[in-house]
Amino acid sequence: MQAALRLASIQGLNGVTIGQVAAAARVTKGQLVQLLGNREALQLATLAAARDLFSSEVMNNAQKPRTAWEKLDRECLGWFDYVERRVLPGGCLITAASSEFRTIKGAVREQLISLRDIRKKRLKDLIRAARRENKKRGTLDVAEMVHQLLAYQAGANIAALLDDKAAFAQAKRATRALIETLA
Amino acid sequence: MQAALRLASIQGLNGVTIGQVAAAARVTKGQLVQLLGNREALQLATLAAARDLFSSEVMNNAQKPRTAWEKLDRECLGWFDYVERRVLPGGCLITAASSEFRTIKGAVREQLISLRDIRKKRLKDLIRAARRENKKRGTLDVAEMVHQLLAYQAGANIAALLDDKAAFAQAKRATRALIETLA
Repeated sequence: MQAALRLASIQGLNGVTIGQVAAAARVTKGQLVQLLGNREALQLATLAAARDLFSSEVMNNAQKPRTAWEKLDRECLGWFDYVERRVLPGGCLITAASSEFRTIKGAVREQLISLRDIRKKRLKDLIRAARRENKKRGTLDVAEMVHQLLAYQAGANIAALLDDKAAFAQAKRATRALIETLA
Repeated sequence: MQAALRLASIQGLNGVTIGQVAAAARVTKGQLVQLLGNREALQLATLAAARDLFSSEVMNNAQKPRTAWEKLDRECLGWFDYVERRVLPGGCLITAASSEFRTIKGAVREQLISLRDIRKKRLKDLIRAARRENKKRGTLDVAEMVHQLLAYQAGANIAALLDDKAAFAQAKRATRALIETLA
């Protein structure tokens, strides 16, 4: 799936053909279809691989600390690091695919909504726990803070690859500042 | 170009084929190629049409007020209104294309960077002028404020079409709050 992931991160999930992935994986188209199924199944498998990659590159490390605040900090700043290091050449595939498939009804869009819901729930839980730990009340409510964090990532994923370093750095600073309000 | 715009706003700029646009415009593929040129030329023409549509739907109205603050307010909140009214079914095509083409080198990406630069310059000028008018100094510098505004739009364009009404409303509120700091 590494080939499909890299291609999708550059060309978009919809820009990847069965033929390209088969060529990159050195199998025939027929073998790939046999293995994975149709185009939509390939897209869903690519999304699952993107989620697993983000888990091993960011989430595993973000789940290590003892406190919720540190977990939150590592997860959110880890996202920027993941994009900056170009683990995938196009940055965060799930953020990009969320834009690409926002209007394309089907299983891929449903899967992206589900990943988004899981992510929002986890961030909300961490924010609530960090508030309890540090006896804080920020000026934003929990849902608003999650939406801000996601907006900074959406902006930064575009900025990073459009060579707008200032906008990327600013999104990272704004994320850090938001998390600091809970420290 | 209306057909190309609507298709691109749903399927992505790269998802639109010459054949689809020709069919929607009731011309042959040959006639369309004769008229516009190759696929990249069609994509550039679609972007230009998206810019013109945004101008007539939002910018013309945003340039009417006398004060810079009101211009800024109308442009930024007008963007949310433009997406909410679904002038295009996929929301803001230029924001979506900026994500889609962020890694695809070529004239379309260059054009998107140029549109982004023009937009950032105009927002900076309006923010500076609004500060002078109202004798304000916000807590953010001018470039940071522009990046925040663009991040809220990037987040909202995804949220709007992924049925995340709360995230869209929050981005709009955050935009309004940022502009209010200059009132």
